Order: sequence, then C-alpha cells, then structure tokens
Amino acid sequence: MTSTARLFAFVLAVPLMLSVAAAEVPKFAKNATSFTLGNGLEVVVIPDHRAPIVTHMVWYKAGAADERPGESGIAHFLEHLMFKGTKDHPEGEFSKVVTSVGGNENAFTSDDVTAYHQDVAKQHLATMMAFEADRMANLVLDEAAVATEREVILEERSSRIDSDPRAQLGEAVRAALYQNSRYGIPTIGWAHEMAELDLDDALSWYNRYYTPNNAVLIVAGDVTEEEVRSLAEVTYGEVRRRFDPPPRDRAEEPEPLAARTVTLSDPQVTQPSMQRVYLAPSYASGEPGEGAALDILSEIVGGGTISRLYRNLVVDQAIAAAAGAFYQSGTLGDAMFGFYGVPRDDGTLAEVEAAIDAEIAALVANGVTEAEVAGAKRRLLAATIYAEDSASALARSLGMALTSGSTLAEAQAWPATIDAVTVDAVNAAARKYLEIRRSVTGYLVGDASQSPS
Amino acid sequence: MTSTARLFAFVLAVPLMLSVAAAEVPKFAKNATSFTLGNGLEVVVIPDHRAPIVTHMVWYKAGAADERPGESGIAHFLEHLMFKGTKDHPEGEFSKVVTSVGGNENAFTSDDVTAYHQDVAKQHLATMMAFEADRMANLVLDEAAVATEREVILEERSSRIDSDPRAQLGEAVRAALYQNSRYGIPTIGWAHEMAELDLDDALSWYNRYYTPNNAVLIVAGDVTEEEVRSLAEVTYGEVRRRFDPPPRDRAEEPEPLAARTVTLSDPQVTQPSMQRVYLAPSYASGEPGEGAALDILSEIVGGGTISRLYRNLVVDQAIAAAAGAFYQSGTLGDAMFGFYGVPRDDGTLAEVEAAIDAEIAALVANGVTEAEVAGAKRRLLAATIYAEDSASALARSLGMALTSGSTLAEAQAWPATIDAVTVDAVNAAARKYLEIRRSVTGYLVGDASQSPS
Repeated sequence: MTSTARLFAFVLAVPLMLSVAAAEVPKFAKNATSFTLGNGLEVVVIPDHRAPIVTHMVWYKAGAADERPGESGIAHFLEHLMFKGTKDHPEGEFSKVVTSVGGNENAFTSDDVTAYHQDVAKQHLATMMAFEADRMANLVLDEAAVATEREVILEERSSRIDSDPRAQLGEAVRAALYQNSRYGIPTIGWAHEMAELDLDDALSWYNRYYTPNNAVLIVAGDVTEEEVRSLAEVTYGEVRRRFDPPPRDRAEEPEPLAARTVTLSDPQVTQPSMQRVYLAPSYASGEPGEGAALDILSEIVGGGTISRLYRNLVVDQAIAAAAGAFYQSGTLGDAMFGFYGVPRDDGTLAEVEAAIDAEIAALVANGVTEAEVAGAKRRLLAATIYAEDSASALARSLGMALTSGSTLAEAQAWPATIDAVTVDAVNAAARKYLEIRRSVTGYLVGDASQSPS
Repeated sequence: MTSTARLFAFVLAVPLMLSVAAAEVPKFAKNATSFTLGNGLEVVVIPDHRAPIVTHMVWYKAGAADERPGESGIAHFLEHLMFKGTKDHPEGEFSKVVTSVGGNENAFTSDDVTAYHQDVAKQHLATMMAFEADRMANLVLDEAAVATEREVILEERSSRIDSDPRAQLGEAVRAALYQNSRYGIPTIGWAHEMAELDLDDALSWYNRYYTPNNAVLIVAGDVTEEEVRSLAEVTYGEVRRRFDPPPRDRAEEPEPLAARTVTLSDPQVTQPSMQRVYLAPSYASGEPGEGAALDILSEIVGGGTISRLYRNLVVDQAIAAAAGAFYQSGTLGDAMFGFYGVPRDDGTLAEVEAAIDAEIAALVANGVTEAEVAGAKRRLLAATIYAEDSASALARSLGMALTSGSTLAEAQAWPATIDAVTVDAVNAAARKYLEIRRSVTGYLVGDASQSPS
C-alpha cells in the first residue's frame, strides 16, 4: 500500500530525448500545463489520449527533512495514517473503491515530499479527486488507529532496515555524510523515536503541512486541462486554505574538511561491497548548470555498461562483479554523488576501491572528452522517449520537480539544460566536488577481516 | 572575556577525596546548602571563610544542544551579547566595576549550559548580584551591537577552529559520532549559520532561556547562607519569572551499528595523532552507577602516568609520545568515552592504534582487577582534597552538576557513588560500550600518506 522511497529523483525518474541542435531540443512533457486554484493548490495536467486511463497524484511539500528533532518518522507515519478514513468515508472505503474499479493506488514519502496516487480508468477520475480532496482536510485519527499503525511502521523498519545490513550501512553513511541537515536522519525514522510518535505528533504534522496551498495535483492521461479544472474546482476547490505552512528550511552543510569511512560488519553479508559518496549540490541547491553537469558526469563515469567504471573494472581489469556511479539530483538541499563497487569472488574491497580511486583521480586530472559528453547527452536525452511513453512516469517526474524547487517551465526545459552542458562545466564539477575530504566511504563486510583498512 | 568551553565536566572539574570505609566516605562540598527564591531561582551557597573573597556564578540551563536547526552558535552568541549593557547600565559599566574593585570575570558556553561569573572581595558581592540580576531581565540589544559582536564570534571561530586542524578534526569526529542529537554540531556554531544570526535570533534565545526559574545562582566563599539569602532577595528576587523555558530535549542516539573513521589531512600538521571515541552514557543519561563505573575505567586505562596506556605505550613499548583516555561524563545526553595516542618521531599511527586496540581488547576480554579499581578510587577521591581547597572549583563543579541533571544531594554524594563501584560494574561497562561499532576513530595527519588505512 505504501512505500518509503528515497527517490533518486529527476534523472533516474525522468529520462529523456535524442540530442539535436540546441534550437531543436524538444521540451520534456511539452503538453503539460498548469494553473492554480483559489485556495493555492497548484494543478498540472499532462494530456495523453492514447489510452482511456489517468494517473492522479497529490504531492505535499513535506518530507522527512522537514521533521523537527526527536520526531523522526512522522512524515512517513502520517502517510500511513492518511489511509485511516475521514468523517464521511471510514477506513478502507477509498481503497475498496479503487480496487472495485480495477485501479491501483500507492503512496510514498521521501526526504522532501509525500505523495499519494491512483491509476484508474478515466471515468473514475472524479471519484478519486473527491476522495483525495476529502482526506486533505477531513482526516479522522484516534489513539487506536495511531497505536495500530505505529506497530506497522515499526515492523516496516524492522524488516526493511534492521534485518538488512545494506540498508543499515546506507543509514550510517548518510549519518556520516550530513553533518548538519536532517538528510542525515533516515526517511523512515529512528526506531526509538518512531516508537514514541503519538496522536498529537500526527495531528500536528497534518495541521502543519496538509493544506491545498502546500500541495501539487498532477493529472496525467486521457483528460484535458478544462476537464481537470472543472473537476478540481468542485472537489479540491472546496477545501479551504487551512493555514500557511512553515518555510522549507534545509540546513546548509558546512564545508566538509575530513574524509570519513563507515564499516558495517555482519555475518549475514556474503558479498562484500563498497560505496563512496561525496557531498554535492542538487539541481535546487547548486549554481545554475551544476546539477546538469553532475548528471552528465555520473553518466560518463558510471552509467551502465558503456561507462568508464563498468568498462575498466568489470570488463577490462575483471576485478569487480559490479561497479557504477549515481547522483541523487532531486533533493531540495545538498545531494549525494556516489560510486559503488562489488569485488569478484576472488577479489578484495581494497582492490576495487583502489581502482575506483584511480578512475576518480584520472577524471579530476584529465577530465572528460567532447565525445564522452556528447554520448552522455545522447543517452540521457534518448531516455526521455521512454518517459514520454508513460503518462504516469511523466506525472511522477513533474511531481518530484515541482515539489523540490523547480517550476514547470524549468522541468520542461530540462533537455535544453542538459544539452547546454559543456566539457568545461563537467570537468569543473568533477574537480570541485570529487575531493576526498567531501566524502564518506562505506564498507559492507561479513567480518572485520574483509575490511580494507 | 568569554570562552566557549566544551567542559569535560564533573570529574575533570570536580576531583575528590581519600577513600576510606564506605560509611566514612565524606561528602563533596559538604557545607553547601541550597534554597529556591519565589521566582524559581535555585541558589547554592558554599561557605568558605579562609579568605575574604567570593565567587559569584549564574548558570543558565541553556547550551548549544538546545539550539534549533539552522541557528547554531546562538547560545554562545548570546553569552557575548550579555555584555552589551542594560537600560540602567550601559555597555562596559559592569566590567569596569569588576575591574575597579580588583575582581575578575568570565563567561562560558557549553552544549548544556551558559554561565557567568565574577571573583571579588566579599564586600562587592552585593554589587555583582545587582548587576547580574539586572542583565537577567533587562538586556538591551540593537542591530549595531549584534553586527559588531557577530564579527567577534566569527573571528573567534576563525582563530580557534578554522586555523587549527586539531579543532577541525574534533568537530568532524563529533559530527560522525552523533547521528541524531545536536551534540554533533559545534558549540561555537557552523560559520555559515553564525554569519546569519541576527537581533531576532538573539532576543528569541534570551526570551526563551534567560529567566530566574531556568537559572542556578552559586555563591562560594566568605559568606553564610543567610547573607546570600538576604542579598539574593533584594536583587535576583526582584526579577520576575519571565516565562517557562521549553523542555530540555536531548534527542536520543540510535544504537550505533557501523564503525567510522575520520581523517583530517593538513600540511600544518607536523605531529600526527589519533583518537578513538565511543558513544557512552553520561551520568545523566546512563543507568545508575554507569557513569561512575566509566569514570573508574577511564582512570585505570588512561588517567595519567600510572595508567595502562601510559605504562604500556609510552614507557614499556616506547612507541607513543603520549597516550591516554578521557570520559566526558557531565553531558545531559549521551557522552564520549575516548582514547588518544601520539606516535614517537619514528613511530606510525597504525602502530599506536594497534597497541590501543590491543589494550581495549585485553580490557574487554580480561577485565580490570580489584587492585586497579581500588587504586583508581583512591586517586579520584584524593583529588577532591584539592577541589575542597578552592571555593571557585567547588562552585564550578556544583554549577555544572546542578544544570546537567543532578541534584545538590547527588553531587554531594559523588564520593560515595565512586566508592560503591565494583570490579564487575567496571567490566560490564567496558564490555557494553567499548564495541567498535559504537566508535569513531579520528586521524590527524600532515598528508594522506601518513594515514593508517
């Protein structure tokens, strides 16, 4: 029903188009339009008439990084509690209706947003909007519902994190990377704080963030802007502007001065692995163009089987079973730019780390080539073809962008932003951010003897 | 004038008495008594008539760990701003009076408290109390004062932290150790947040914590309880209870799962060194007796030249120029239990770390002896003799204790608490807390080649 997603945002969610001359770079989701209701709800419509279905999503600008000290997990907890019913619709009714019309629904919480969505045949859109608008303002919670659902989230944490050494290492790496902001705290929360979350905490969160003027409605599929506007006005339009949400502060990180390592040792681990993450700007927190340059960099060094890391470590040197890079570009505050490597059966973590270090050193010293940048642009932009094929993928990409610091116009211009990246910009970003003092290296090992240090 | 102290609290500040049979263990500061004024100000008097002088201290239960996200440094900033004058006494008048009567004054901020004190001849006590009570409620601040003093704290940070690799490593180690609480953020603040602190932030802090019902007054020296009571009633007693301070939340740390390292490399470093800190309970956050057991453990393993670490690493193996242990026992939330080592000119960090690891492993495997525990108690308790000799040392110890979770009776019973520690309690604490997954190891090196890993 619900999921806690640390969304690898924009690029991984977006994927884009064939590169052509600058003037011809097509827009992303070019049919999308937006308007705002009187109560402040922003509405985005993405018409796609190829099939008589719609994706209906509501995104709240509230995520785990908005939590206050001591209440970790409340953003995700409220996501669960949003399924507890309202005064007009008791618990389970909404979900039952979705199922009865052959639709499906989901919800997720990230560090920056909480979103709810349903995919249904177009004739059921009005019903979805009525239910979703209803729970935006009329959620009913009591001690019993909170107590029951708290067990659910604790069990969720227990099965997803506490029994998974990889997830535990991920939490420890984040905690070490972020020295100041709430991004260092797990999206799902720390178990000891989750166990203390109560009805007051839940209502306080709901009454701090769940208001139309803090939400974005996305409808994608077989609809027109006018149809959505009419339906929205008689559903969401009836929800009063409940309050003004607090500013979305993302505590800025201090300049990192010391390289860090984190070693998680657990007998369950049969396959050691390592990761190296650097504190880097996101699209929202960086200078114009930096996010796009880092996207290109990530693609060149570690995107798929054509990347430097894959070719050199997995194919040529044959020391790694897997190796790559990733860039979490879509956070409001500073992001992670990372590398990972898994040694082959007869290899060691130290060997794989040394090879990744050598690739990073070469990147910083010699930079990337025009051909590499052109190829990366082609691959990134080509991927939008697939995104344009899926109304729900477009909805997801735009929802994420619009709740994480972008305007619709900026999101639509993403292909041009990527196309404008220069070799110099990529090399400057690599030199600026791939400094060891900005990094945390995580090791996952079965026992301490496998640790590289 | 002012100082940001990360106080190594209780034991390092307290120091105590000769061990004798349990029933005969003397109280610490046994002459100290306390009472509370009608406005909630707690008053502690420590009579000591050997010299006609007094120490006058006001402690506020407000420190850097009480700061909200984004306002790091405000506790210490307000400490500076408390010298800016009131409507009756312009800036500088109070300090001028202290100096003119041959006294001296100081102030400091820690993670848990902010304190102001003066040492003067006894006949000037009433004047000190009048001035100090006045600025508890009547501080006058303006934009100009805030702007000027902000430059001072930024310069203080710049000279104390940003130009000192040891201090930089200390900040990075704390940031890595504390995954949830504000103890991971520097007491003095992050520079980028200090630069944004303004008049509103300062007044908001002052109006959140500076009220008699959130303070402890300590007067030590040539006075009686009755004299202090009379003087307090006509000075501090006139300050109205301004508001109720917020609860002192110390976000609990999650159970640490992954060993961490932090490496600070700086060409200024001519002498590499390493430290290993474990997350451990303080007196306030631990189970009864745990803090005392850790104090004994710290003394046995690393307290001075008779300790295991000094004897083995510095004297016998002759690989270290310095080695020892420390325990920050006096925090409200969880504390640090730590080890440090400095290699000799021809030694390496790896060698020193391996030797410290071996000492810790031996401690956990074999425990300490009755003789070691008895000796540590003797040394800790003997040190109180010196503390009893100094009224201002007693004032400082009691002020720290009473603003960090202890009652006066508990603080006075500290010698008995230490005397009651058993070998089993010390061994249990060592086994429970000296686990590598609870730790951060910090390396200070001149260049990366000196790093042990």
